Amino acid sequence: MKAVVYDGPRQIRYADVREPVLAAPHGAIVKVTLASVCGSDLHVHEGAEFRPGTGFCLGHEAVGRVVETGPAVTGFEVGDRVMIPGSVGCSTCQPCRLGRVSVCETRSRNDPVSCYGLGPDLQGSQAEFVFVPHAATNLWRTPSDVSDESAVVLVDAAATALYGLRRARMVPGDNVAIVGLGPIGNLMGRLALIAGAARVFGIDPSGTRRTAAGRAGLIPLGPENAKGEIRDATGGLGVEVVLEAAGTDASIGLALALARVTGRVSIVGVTTSKAFPLHLQLAQIKELEIATGLCSVQFELPSLLRLTSSGQLDPAAVVTHNFPLSEAASVYARLLAREDGLLKVTLNPAC
Amino acid sequence: MKAVVYDGPRQIRYADVREPVLAAPHGAIVKVTLASVCGSDLHVHEGAEFRPGTGFCLGHEAVGRVVETGPAVTGFEVGDRVMIPGSVGCSTCQPCRLGRVSVCETRSRNDPVSCYGLGPDLQGSQAEFVFVPHAATNLWRTPSDVSDESAVVLVDAAATALYGLRRARMVPGDNVAIVGLGPIGNLMGRLALIAGAARVFGIDPSGTRRTAAGRAGLIPLGPENAKGEIRDATGGLGVEVVLEAAGTDASIGLALALARVTGRVSIVGVTTSKAFPLHLQLAQIKELEIATGLCSVQFELPSLLRLTSSGQLDPAAVVTHNFPLSEAASVYARLLAREDGLLKVTLNPAC
Amino acid sequence: MKAVVYDGPRQIRYADVREPVLAAPHGAIVKVTLASVCGSDLHVHEGAEFRPGTGFCLGHEAVGRVVETGPAVTGFEVGDRVMIPGSVGCSTCQPCRLGRVSVCETRSRNDPVSCYGLGPDLQGSQAEFVFVPHAATNLWRTPSDVSDESAVVLVDAAATALYGLRRARMVPGDNVAIVGLGPIGNLMGRLALIAGAARVFGIDPSGTRRTAAGRAGLIPLGPENAKGEIRDATGGLGVEVVLEAAGTDASIGLALALARVTGRVSIVGVTTSKAFPLHLQLAQIKELEIATGLCSVQFELPSLLRLTSSGQLDPAAVVTHNFPLSEAASVYARLLAREDGLLKVTLNPAC
Amino acid sequence: MKAVVYDGPRQIRYADVREPVLAAPHGAIVKVTLASVCGSDLHVHEGAEFRPGTGFCLGHEAVGRVVETGPAVTGFEVGDRVMIPGSVGCSTCQPCRLGRVSVCETRSRNDPVSCYGLGPDLQGSQAEFVFVPHAATNLWRTPSDVSDESAVVLVDAAATALYGLRRARMVPGDNVAIVGLGPIGNLMGRLALIAGAARVFGIDPSGTRRTAAGRAGLIPLGPENAKGEIRDATGGLGVEVVLEAAGTDASIGLALALARVTGRVSIVGVTTSKAFPLHLQLAQIKELEIATGLCSVQFELPSLLRLTSSGQLDPAAVVTHNFPLSEAASVYARLLAREDGLLKVTLNPAC
Repeated sequence: MKAVVYDGPRQIRYADVREPVLAAPHGAIVKVTLASVCGSDLHVHEGAEFRPGTGFCLGHEAVGRVVETGPAVTGFEVGDRVMIPGSVGCSTCQPCRLGRVSVCETRSRNDPVSCYGLGPDLQGSQAEFVFVPHAATNLWRTPSDVSDESAVVLVDAAATALYGLRRARMVPGDNVAIVGLGPIGNLMGRLALIAGAARVFGIDPSGTRRTAAGRAGLIPLGPENAKGEIRDATGGLGVEVVLEAAGTDASIGLALALARVTGRVSIVGVTTSKAFPLHLQLAQIKELEIATGLCSVQFELPSLLRLTSSGQLDPAAVVTHNFPLSEAASVYARLLAREDGLLKVTLNPAC
Repeated sequence: MKAVVYDGPRQIRYADVREPVLAAPHGAIVKVTLASVCGSDLHVHEGAEFRPGTGFCLGHEAVGRVVETGPAVTGFEVGDRVMIPGSVGCSTCQPCRLGRVSVCETRSRNDPVSCYGLGPDLQGSQAEFVFVPHAATNLWRTPSDVSDESAVVLVDAAATALYGLRRARMVPGDNVAIVGLGPIGNLMGRLALIAGAARVFGIDPSGTRRTAAGRAGLIPLGPENAKGEIRDATGGLGVEVVLEAAGTDASIGLALALARVTGRVSIVGVTTSKAFPLHLQLAQIKELEIATGLCSVQFELPSLLRLTSSGQLDPAAVVTHNFPLSEAASVYARLLAREDGLLKVTLNPAC
Repeated sequence: MKAVVYDGPRQIRYADVREPVLAAPHGAIVKVTLASVCGSDLHVHEGAEFRPGTGFCLGHEAVGRVVETGPAVTGFEVGDRVMIPGSVGCSTCQPCRLGRVSVCETRSRNDPVSCYGLGPDLQGSQAEFVFVPHAATNLWRTPSDVSDESAVVLVDAAATALYGLRRARMVPGDNVAIVGLGPIGNLMGRLALIAGAARVFGIDPSGTRRTAAGRAGLIPLGPENAKGEIRDATGGLGVEVVLEAAGTDASIGLALALARVTGRVSIVGVTTSKAFPLHLQLAQIKELEIATGLCSVQFELPSLLRLTSSGQLDPAAVVTHNFPLSEAASVYARLLAREDGLLKVTLNPAC
Repeated sequence: MKAVVYDGPRQIRYADVREPVLAAPHGAIVKVTLASVCGSDLHVHEGAEFRPGTGFCLGHEAVGRVVETGPAVTGFEVGDRVMIPGSVGCSTCQPCRLGRVSVCETRSRNDPVSCYGLGPDLQGSQAEFVFVPHAATNLWRTPSDVSDESAVVLVDAAATALYGLRRARMVPGDNVAIVGLGPIGNLMGRLALIAGAARVFGIDPSGTRRTAAGRAGLIPLGPENAKGEIRDATGGLGVEVVLEAAGTDASIGLALALARVTGRVSIVGVTTSKAFPLHLQLAQIKELEIATGLCSVQFELPSLLRLTSSGQLDPAAVVTHNFPLSEAASVYARLLAREDGLLKVTLNPAC
């Protein structure tokens, strides 16, 4: 089959690889109908070796149809239209049994950030076919009223956005600031507005991303004047809730600075910071709460699907470009070059 | 001064009464600039003797300007534009010190439903002037960007609506049903939509009220077909949240019937039912949660004012009629006759 | 095999029946090492026809060892020591995937109170062997430091107790009243004390049950003077939290009467009341919250097992009698006669 | 009157000063019957200039009797036995009206850490008399069943302990680690046990403090082997809840390291760290929640008083020494020298 293969730092190619085989009785094979590119795919591409090895398929955002199920699979049948959540669980540990896949105990003992497309042991889904372990936990039926384009956003970006918002315990009337207006930041802004945020300030250096956020109802601001503008707009107080979706030390520092007294700061931008210089004295005087983490997609999906089916949320609104899977290499290059105007980009194996 | 006086069951008159005097050092006198009529004023009018006595001023929804403060008052000055919350607290007991005025311990020992305009000891505010005890607890500054018409809705109806919603612990994506589309029900529907409700069904026998609710974004339904329509619209499940704002046994029974498994039913319609026939077996199978109570206006105001200032909520949208205070008798008569089209009605002492 | 068989109202016998067969690939057969009798078994015995039919095995509280697993079972192997939660789920619907088995959507469409031992379709576990459907959801490994006697209490009674307490949202320092001191009431009292209740009043007409509760640290009271005693002990206020574990109209009425202003009443006593006369006016003035439901054992087990392993909770403390399974008929008779001194009674198939 | 006066870094003296005068109509003068020394008094003593100036009275932990009230004071009378909460509010801003004194808006605009005894504008209470502004917010009646020795612990140390625990959202069965076993840490351990913690590990370099914690039921550990011991005791996982009560970078770093996946870390040790090196990547993988702040004593008192009156909590248990106020200088010296065995020390103006 055709797939996007990682050959080493900054080397990917669209190539023929062996089709996945049904490696376990509880697993399934899914024919991918739509994949998409996540910011962390770019990290892999640049050589952030989450797990050793090369020659594996990239990607962890995909939807498709079940083409084969192991003999032990229940609840899914060949032909089912499915979403493949980006978080992967063992299905038998206590957290998995309660939907908390991101803290799966079985997996985390060996690998704290397991996911599709990070190494050879769990091949990615930017491919024609992908093997899904433990279908009971790691597949989710796509409702008939949800398009593939929406579904592929739900399986990672939108779930992370809802998770980030939920951990900030926003209440209607809160003022909210979003730092970083990529797909997740944009979606967090949309979700905050749905949940009754008074005003949502969206901060990003990219004018195009600010424009996209503005169309979604956010108040767009550049990082350079965000603090002053928000101070002025909130009577000098700052905002109740800050959602961080960029993951750099600078953006996290800005997030903390924007929070008002008793504010809550939720960090979902993937960070590699091992010694972030936190102004704890100020955080203490401000009575801040700081939450961070990685999302259990499975836990967020029921709410997200209700919001999508009701029309409140349009996940596909963050999709700006659709490409054939065969053009993955140039898509990655454009994303790495931070080409303006690209938000969520899908890859279609069928074209 | 002029005021609306209760002379006994179904006897009210617009008449001259003695102006209030500053009866306590922590109190204040407020010149009323706008009052409004609450459903429970009609109960008083019909003789539901909350407290013995006649000859007192009616009403507990009003805003105005401070004209006199006791020597012990801090935080308010003559000339301040103020809201007078419908709930009244002693200001020194533990609940009052945390804003939980509706469960004031001092007051509740003597009178569990104290409020303005229920008896001679605390005169009502459908008058040119009203005495407010314990200004520190029982006055609230009106922000300059909030009109009197909005403020008079905030001091009771909107606060009760937010309280009812809060106790139902709604989350974005929940389907919601409102039973009873008077001012409080209408506002509960608006607040549920602000807070991210997927769909809000609004149920009332009055076509005019259903139309008003429809304009606010609710899905209007008559009581006779509500259950069937909601069942069909929710795949047979029912709604996550039911907000009851009518207070009759029939409306409360309908509210319980509309709740889905694990639903939450919040009853704010004032009820006098002493033996409501509750189908507990069904409630148990459905894992219901039933909350009821009377609102601490003071506790809800900070959130409400933020929602109003941000433009998310327009409390004045439920005001359908403005009358001079002098026409109170005919206004009461029309409300009691359930004349179609009247939602929240204000009374202006200045006209 | 030997089992306790229901032949019709008030007719049970210890008899030979066909051993269960592995009816589905995701199921398992468990050899029962210890079963116990629940109050609702007595309801079945008395003819409360939850589901039509006779000739089926009774019981839904049991632990044992896996002796056979379907080809699709993962996470359990022959020989595993297991608990069989009293609540049964389909394992594939959304609630089941989050551990909320009691509101399983697949099952509830057909049968809202499904469970082992209520009818012929899901045989009970007061037997030498029992078939467990969907092992992934309906089995739980027994930790090595938890005895069978403790485990058999955890699979239903203790889980219901924790669920009842959790829904009352008790906080440390709350005064608590328990109405009904059977095994669940006794355990609720123990859990309330663990969670920091200031005082726990335990109410039951049986002197023996009161004595047992007193040994657990509760303040024992008879129903006749409970209201007065609690009023005196709480400065006239009543208690913050009431946990109801008897399920009669009288006990539920007492529970509501004991709650103070802003109290929370959690009803887990199984009720068949279709028109409980609720004093809604009083509930409203008191701002009560009333929660009821049936427990998802699977959802409660992680916390319960931690409390048991740490030694905080001794579930076996409520076991007063151990009988051979062969004596089930006389055990049921003694329980139905409300013989004093019997709390939780186990039945051992091996004796 | 006699008082403990700050004359500059490391210079305090017991001296005659002018008695306070009733500076505002809502204030009161309290005759101090018992004061105590807080860790932050030592910071002031060492020259951590919270506010400019010298020659003022030290201390913010005290109880006494009202000897004079301003004409505007309600709820308190001369002769009342009172607690003086360490946190001071304006009584009229929105947070103060809801009991959230630590985020008082009026005060915080001018001074983010206002409190008694930090500068000349609000004299401290290690004195024979102290002026209390806004008695309605800043005094609390001492219940007759609470001793002065308990009450003086409640007005700051115990309130901070409960606040720290509450922000960590501990649930029964959680394993807890306390870093720093001074009075607040010791009390946090006691409160965690009351609230149902499975095991509470207490960490401090001082053997005497560990012994005191051990007597309270904590598992005492030295900082050097805490991580290994807790890892072993929790199956390699770490604890659900960490409460930090020392405030150094090292102790905060240890706190974060002890938290398990999905752990919550609550920091109440007063920190002056402006660039704490936070391992954010690890915090993200572990899905941590970090809360910090300064306590609103007034908000915590209702719960604390219930726990004290019920006998669950004995605040006085952390008082190891009682001295006459006249010996304050040597007491400060011994505390600064970290003399072993001193936990909470009271100062009595009457001796």
